[in-house]
Amino acid sequence: MAGPSVLTPQNEDFPKWYQDVVAKAEMADNGPVRGTMVIRPYGYAIWERIQSAIDGRIKLAGAENAYFPLFIPESYLSKEAEHVEGFSPELAVVTHAGGEELAEPIVVRPTSETVIGEFMAKWIQSYRDLPLLLNQWANVVRWELRPRLFLRSSEFLWQEGHTAHASALDASQFATKIHLEVYNDFLEKVLAVPTFLGIKPPSERFAGATNTMTCEGMMRDGKALQMATSHELGQNFARAFDIFYQSEEGQAQLCFTTSWGASTRLVGGLIMAHGDDNGLVLPPEVAPIEVVVVAVREDDEVLRACQTLHAEFTLDGVRSKVDDGRRGSFGRRVTDWEMKGVPLRVEVGPRDLAQGVVTVVRRDSGEKFAVALGEVRALVRVLRATVQDDMFRGAREFRDARTVDVATLDEAVVAAQSGFARLDWDQVGDEGEARLKAEAMTVRCLQRRDGSIPADETEAGLVAIIAKSY
Amino acid sequence: MAGPSVLTPQNEDFPKWYQDVVAKAEMADNGPVRGTMVIRPYGYAIWERIQSAIDGRIKLAGAENAYFPLFIPESYLSKEAEHVEGFSPELAVVTHAGGEELAEPIVVRPTSETVIGEFMAKWIQSYRDLPLLLNQWANVVRWELRPRLFLRSSEFLWQEGHTAHASALDASQFATKIHLEVYNDFLEKVLAVPTFLGIKPPSERFAGATNTMTCEGMMRDGKALQMATSHELGQNFARAFDIFYQSEEGQAQLCFTTSWGASTRLVGGLIMAHGDDNGLVLPPEVAPIEVVVVAVREDDEVLRACQTLHAEFTLDGVRSKVDDGRRGSFGRRVTDWEMKGVPLRVEVGPRDLAQGVVTVVRRDSGEKFAVALGEVRALVRVLRATVQDDMFRGAREFRDARTVDVATLDEAVVAAQSGFARLDWDQVGDEGEARLKAEAMTVRCLQRRDGSIPADETEAGLVAIIAKSY
Repeated sequence: MAGPSVLTPQNEDFPKWYQDVVAKAEMADNGPVRGTMVIRPYGYAIWERIQSAIDGRIKLAGAENAYFPLFIPESYLSKEAEHVEGFSPELAVVTHAGGEELAEPIVVRPTSETVIGEFMAKWIQSYRDLPLLLNQWANVVRWELRPRLFLRSSEFLWQEGHTAHASALDASQFATKIHLEVYNDFLEKVLAVPTFLGIKPPSERFAGATNTMTCEGMMRDGKALQMATSHELGQNFARAFDIFYQSEEGQAQLCFTTSWGASTRLVGGLIMAHGDDNGLVLPPEVAPIEVVVVAVREDDEVLRACQTLHAEFTLDGVRSKVDDGRRGSFGRRVTDWEMKGVPLRVEVGPRDLAQGVVTVVRRDSGEKFAVALGEVRALVRVLRATVQDDMFRGAREFRDARTVDVATLDEAVVAAQSGFARLDWDQVGDEGEARLKAEAMTVRCLQRRDGSIPADETEAGLVAIIAKSY
Repeated sequence: MAGPSVLTPQNEDFPKWYQDVVAKAEMADNGPVRGTMVIRPYGYAIWERIQSAIDGRIKLAGAENAYFPLFIPESYLSKEAEHVEGFSPELAVVTHAGGEELAEPIVVRPTSETVIGEFMAKWIQSYRDLPLLLNQWANVVRWELRPRLFLRSSEFLWQEGHTAHASALDASQFATKIHLEVYNDFLEKVLAVPTFLGIKPPSERFAGATNTMTCEGMMRDGKALQMATSHELGQNFARAFDIFYQSEEGQAQLCFTTSWGASTRLVGGLIMAHGDDNGLVLPPEVAPIEVVVVAVREDDEVLRACQTLHAEFTLDGVRSKVDDGRRGSFGRRVTDWEMKGVPLRVEVGPRDLAQGVVTVVRRDSGEKFAVALGEVRALVRVLRATVQDDMFRGAREFRDARTVDVATLDEAVVAAQSGFARLDWDQVGDEGEARLKAEAMTVRCLQRRDGSIPADETEAGLVAIIAKSY
């Protein structure tokens, strides 16, 4: 490694480490309005890869993208009682527009169930129009008093899916499909983040939902991050917005709706699930640059060799970039590429090159390979898959090592200081949840013993995953 | 064609035709808050193809995507005098958030020059950081009193590019490159819309710009639509936001900035540039579905043949869809696919199929081909390119036929009732612009005689393109 770390070490102060990494890897800055965020090009390129991977999976699941307005009449939110109660404290309100005071204040969407509900009611006539499967990529606003870049910002980017179904079963099956085939598949295969899947206890449900499924990832400090959620909304929004369909028998029936979302918070999760004291560590699938070809110093022959390698990688569909050596010392540049978490680094120096050799370095393990020029292409092709797999396995081992089965709430409180505790849900109860809250912990999710997702919290034999969280 | 048109004919009432098409092709709906818009899945799929084509070209030009906040402190807008004057009447203002009245009101971005200027000042240190080439895909809000879906909505989606350069020349060259290689190339090759390229007269410039380049397309009623604009901002925003760089000689210098944008208005332009009395007519490049394979009626053998053709098209990378005949009569379904402007229709009927033949129909020309099953794939491969070319050529012929060289302002006023008038810019002057305004016409752009883009409006021998416009 190139000299002492330029970051606050994780062990010393994890939140400070996070803040340092976000700044030094040029991921994001604070915006001028409290809690808003500027996503810089490197951070945004990661978000674009996340978007593309999730969007492809959503389309495969059969949903279509659409776009609904940013502005929602204030009265819409009041139509669903729990919903308005949940979101009122976080709303941003437009009172003036076009130089005049508005007759009815407008809220900036904190989520779009209400406005989409209004249009579902308009578009759905008969059972033939169901299921109606919609998704949108948008910005939403929830006023934050304690903002943190990516994790908790007053404005964030996300996708929100909204669907309407003829039966509770169909709604539940579709929400589960999204949860497994979109979110969990993406998290495992692209972000290389293993998760615990389950449902939220009633106290932690989305405002207006009858059931909320979650994917909980473990960060490097042992805390949990909710990576994505899928909600069954029962007939709550259908009732509030008159989303009826005519059944095959000709009767007017209320629909069952779902919603599900994942946001720029995933970028924060990616940073905290894999990063180390030298900066980001990106799995190849999500890395804007998979391989950086670094000229040890400015030199025509070295640069030519770098360009040749870059061309080979490009032909293989590997996202590659040449660092031509013009900006700063070799050591400084290596530190920067490590900070940015580029999975593979090919170092090309004049002396090695004279012997037909270059050095390939893995960002995740630090492993180095001295390789003949003619073998680099094949090695990189193999390594990108290996690194992806190893990172997922490593994250799962880390998580499993810090996940402890406990028998009492007292033991759970101890174990969740530095990881996850697994405790029988029966042992928790309302009092237990209050006790956990006092310790800044929560029940992150409820699972069956085999790790699968229960239908609801009343099932016998459920396990509660207890942790501190972001 | 299948029965009488379900649309108001273009000749009868073009604005009504437009409104009908937007509704019947399921492109968009009015949102609940005045002037806002719901983009329905079919309209959004077209927008996604537009985004992807423009985004690829922007990246090729060297700009990187980033994301800046929706909310801008009101004080930012006041820093550039012309800018605030231009946008103040259109602003939406947030006065309350998180349950409290805000100390300083926040505006919802009408465009992002100001907030991006603030961050350029922070990120740019030396000449080595230049040019800084940024782009963002975002929603913006400009309060509209006379909204029209896609063309003029209070909230719209767009990309806005923002760049900083060391010299006026570099800024001007980059803005021109974007104008030609991103916008004009996209308009010609993807939307199949020929444009007149030029600069806006000073009276029509973007608020705060020293020069505005535009691409003006002609709609089917002979009116002009501004399809995209690129602005040289001189040092106006650099001065307002302290965007300095240190030159090679170590001196602090003000940057030169540019901005350039294209929006969901392009969807409106696409509809009005190609549509006819049967609905949308989409060029294959931008069509979400390039070929619809229509079963004349429900029949197992017919359906099998449809699926085989669909599989062949998919292998060729042609976006295809099967209409299995379950929803409505053949005539009704044909009308719907014509309404949606799908470029090619393959009709598979049981009698034709028994003879190994199907019918291929072009949406643009109505031309029909009876083809042996084994030849369909090759024909479709050829036709998608032919249709794209023919549509561009047809639109250019239409435009040229309606573009008249005139010698006086009086003649221009006559010609611009139903098309474009080309008049020496010298013949216009301030008085001429006032006269045109009274006729609901404007100078859409100034060109050199050879159609190229002049450096500024003071060049000798410029021609003014005069038209009514959206």
